[in-house]
Amino acid sequence: MSNGDIFVGEVIGTAILILFGAGVCAAVTLRHSKARASGWVVIAFGWGFGVLAGAYTAAPLSGGQLNPAVTIGIAVDTGKWGRVWVYLLGQLVGAILGAVLTYLVYLAQFQANVPDEESGEEPTPTLGIFSTIPEIRNPVANLVTEIIATIALVLPILAFGLTKGLGESGTTVLIVSLLVVGIGLSLGGPTGYAINPTRDLGPRIVHTFLPIPNKGTSDWGYAWIPVVGPLIGGVLAGLIYNAAF
Amino acid sequence: MSNGDIFVGEVIGTAILILFGAGVCAAVTLRHSKARASGWVVIAFGWGFGVLAGAYTAAPLSGGQLNPAVTIGIAVDTGKWGRVWVYLLGQLVGAILGAVLTYLVYLAQFQANVPDEESGEEPTPTLGIFSTIPEIRNPVANLVTEIIATIALVLPILAFGLTKGLGESGTTVLIVSLLVVGIGLSLGGPTGYAINPTRDLGPRIVHTFLPIPNKGTSDWGYAWIPVVGPLIGGVLAGLIYNAAF
Amino acid sequence: MSNGDIFVGEVIGTAILILFGAGVCAAVTLRHSKARASGWVVIAFGWGFGVLAGAYTAAPLSGGQLNPAVTIGIAVDTGKWGRVWVYLLGQLVGAILGAVLTYLVYLAQFQANVPDEESGEEPTPTLGIFSTIPEIRNPVANLVTEIIATIALVLPILAFGLTKGLGESGTTVLIVSLLVVGIGLSLGGPTGYAINPTRDLGPRIVHTFLPIPNKGTSDWGYAWIPVVGPLIGGVLAGLIYNAAF
Amino acid sequence: MSNGDIFVGEVIGTAILILFGAGVCAAVTLRHSKARASGWVVIAFGWGFGVLAGAYTAAPLSGGQLNPAVTIGIAVDTGKWGRVWVYLLGQLVGAILGAVLTYLVYLAQFQANVPDEESGEEPTPTLGIFSTIPEIRNPVANLVTEIIATIALVLPILAFGLTKGLGESGTTVLIVSLLVVGIGLSLGGPTGYAINPTRDLGPRIVHTFLPIPNKGTSDWGYAWIPVVGPLIGGVLAGLIYNAAF
Repeated sequence: MSNGDIFVGEVIGTAILILFGAGVCAAVTLRHSKARASGWVVIAFGWGFGVLAGAYTAAPLSGGQLNPAVTIGIAVDTGKWGRVWVYLLGQLVGAILGAVLTYLVYLAQFQANVPDEESGEEPTPTLGIFSTIPEIRNPVANLVTEIIATIALVLPILAFGLTKGLGESGTTVLIVSLLVVGIGLSLGGPTGYAINPTRDLGPRIVHTFLPIPNKGTSDWGYAWIPVVGPLIGGVLAGLIYNAAF
Repeated sequence: MSNGDIFVGEVIGTAILILFGAGVCAAVTLRHSKARASGWVVIAFGWGFGVLAGAYTAAPLSGGQLNPAVTIGIAVDTGKWGRVWVYLLGQLVGAILGAVLTYLVYLAQFQANVPDEESGEEPTPTLGIFSTIPEIRNPVANLVTEIIATIALVLPILAFGLTKGLGESGTTVLIVSLLVVGIGLSLGGPTGYAINPTRDLGPRIVHTFLPIPNKGTSDWGYAWIPVVGPLIGGVLAGLIYNAAF
Repeated sequence: MSNGDIFVGEVIGTAILILFGAGVCAAVTLRHSKARASGWVVIAFGWGFGVLAGAYTAAPLSGGQLNPAVTIGIAVDTGKWGRVWVYLLGQLVGAILGAVLTYLVYLAQFQANVPDEESGEEPTPTLGIFSTIPEIRNPVANLVTEIIATIALVLPILAFGLTKGLGESGTTVLIVSLLVVGIGLSLGGPTGYAINPTRDLGPRIVHTFLPIPNKGTSDWGYAWIPVVGPLIGGVLAGLIYNAAF
Repeated sequence: MSNGDIFVGEVIGTAILILFGAGVCAAVTLRHSKARASGWVVIAFGWGFGVLAGAYTAAPLSGGQLNPAVTIGIAVDTGKWGRVWVYLLGQLVGAILGAVLTYLVYLAQFQANVPDEESGEEPTPTLGIFSTIPEIRNPVANLVTEIIATIALVLPILAFGLTKGLGESGTTVLIVSLLVVGIGLSLGGPTGYAINPTRDLGPRIVHTFLPIPNKGTSDWGYAWIPVVGPLIGGVLAGLIYNAAF
């Protein structure tokens, strides 16, 4: 794989991941959406099938890592760090692109995010569509949640690689995507499960600049936790894997 | 594959797709259905498993494309346009057949679509069972939504083809069907995700002629968007694929 | 496969199918169940994963047909009728066994099916746990629903067999089980989707004799429809398959 | 496989299983969780995908049994008892570890389990997050439920082994995980489906010692049923398998 292929693969794959992930949060959150208030099961499957779509599309080009925590976990495991920067750059650009695409898909809904004339209902805060917000704000607890949830993502992915090349088998991609559904269902309650630094950072950058009416805060004070937590989790997963397997 | 096999395969496969897809909309919408008001997750999985059923059935005959946006995306990619018309014709006939079958499955429910004598409850508008209706009517935004959602369908399908022949592997068909579930969950909020011109056009023709009491408008003013949007999306997906992969 | 293996395989497989299927109806219906009122999506996935469990268990012994409509559809297709009676006998015995096992799993819940002392809430009618009940009682419409829904089950199963032996591949069993989920979501609204004569008949026999308090009618007047409809559907699927493939 | 690999594999795999399983119960139960009150479908898929994550991770080391009922069912079938103690020890240690990790993921939520100052809402009893509680307390009925539900787990797993090595195929792990989803949906209503002695015992030990405010009883009077029931079920599944297959 050339650096160009890796970059393009990660841009396209991460853009699709974020389009589905931020898209499902828009679908459930925004008032004029057919899926409004359809619940946590929709959120979790939407993100998981975003991994399915993005990773399978990117697989022939870059292997479809789409997540710096995965990339760094693999690097810790294999000791090969030379192309990590290409993956990370592609993932950040892809996450930004995916957030912009989500905005375009829900353009009419975002433009209608004003007080409802009939019911007087307030507009919806929109950051939760793009980035994670903790249910209880507690930096240590939030960080621990993101670290453990990321280990629960990256350790199985590394173990899967023992029997099959990541991204080469449709079954493996399917299992990873259902693993992400499971993390959402089980471990997403406290922080909304970033488990991926660019998944949170890229859309937060986009949210800061988008012209959405009543969009609310971009909450940069919290932004380091969904970056640092998953990175620590990815490193720990690599170390646990090397020690145990 | 002969032209006859392709035509028959696409007719049967698309009929099954629409039977499941329009069927699940009837199941959730109509008053005398056991699945009434069971939510967006039911809609999205119903459509996705309709793709599973239809594409796997059609695979030995035609490869199971079932969607002009997919057919045209493949043609843009491969440059082979000779049999496109056979696919499209089969898809349109199949979509019409599937909509009629759905009407027959829910015949008693459609016939009972009259004001409820006890509660006085109004009958249900029925177009949403057959065709898509935007949540906010905005031609440009609706078109953009359909274009992006269709790219999110066709680009992964084209990329899947790099490693496995479409329709030859059960795993590939399964992944495409879960991809369609994901598109429904994540990108279906604004327009109800046609992402397939005949999926919308065929059932709308049937809705126009069916003798359903209180069936409401067939809304032909909107009908061009779910045809044109997915066609543009299919072409763009083919161009992106050729440029990137 | 010996006749003995086929019989044992169909008994065990169909018993597991009905245990899961009647079980999920009990789970959603009965008052003292943790899954009470959890909705149609739970019903549809419970039945589908019952097919998964039963068919995969029975596969090494009998191929895991578990349904007279499937068995007869295959016989119409292949012209081999010699062992059909072994399959059907095993399926009926298995369905009866499965319904008894469901009763035992929910024994305390069935025994508690009496008027609630505190709330005065009425006991739940229990036939819907065992057998199908139409939402609107209309013999012709109900029969048409069962016929079309059964074709939508058996035709894909026959087509799957073109590329892979039924029951020999885990992926095929998985796809058939998700197909059954899809039929439930999309086509189950009017009649509760028997699509399998013994699935309805066996448990109805058991319901007639079980000592459940306030169990309500066993509704034998309707019992012929979920037997005859799926049989017609299986024959038609075999004929369509032979004509088209 | 060395005893060390088996032990480490079962510890890691069972810890992941319990992290997802207890995690999803915390997610649905605790007041300050984004997934609160999201229903039985979330519970069942969360546990099932916990099996997916744990078994696939453990597969290269130990085969990923994660459950004494499975281990003993396999021993009854094969007659090989020599390493059973290694599996069981690893499973118990893993279950304890997984429950502690769940506590850490939901730390802020557990610490906030006090009467709500504004609404006066009572704190949530927390045992149900860690261990099973019957809906109706009836030792014989509860035991029968656990026995039958465990047979429905172990018998298919043994039958799957006829065609494919357990844990060597991604598809097999996926099917077993969906089987567990199905057991939850269909058979979990009466007792909350332990179907695994250490899944209940390990977290109950942890619950006894954790400093959770208002945590409520650890209910040791019931603790023998979710241990003894699944063990009987595992033995019976092994005997049925040997007799029938």
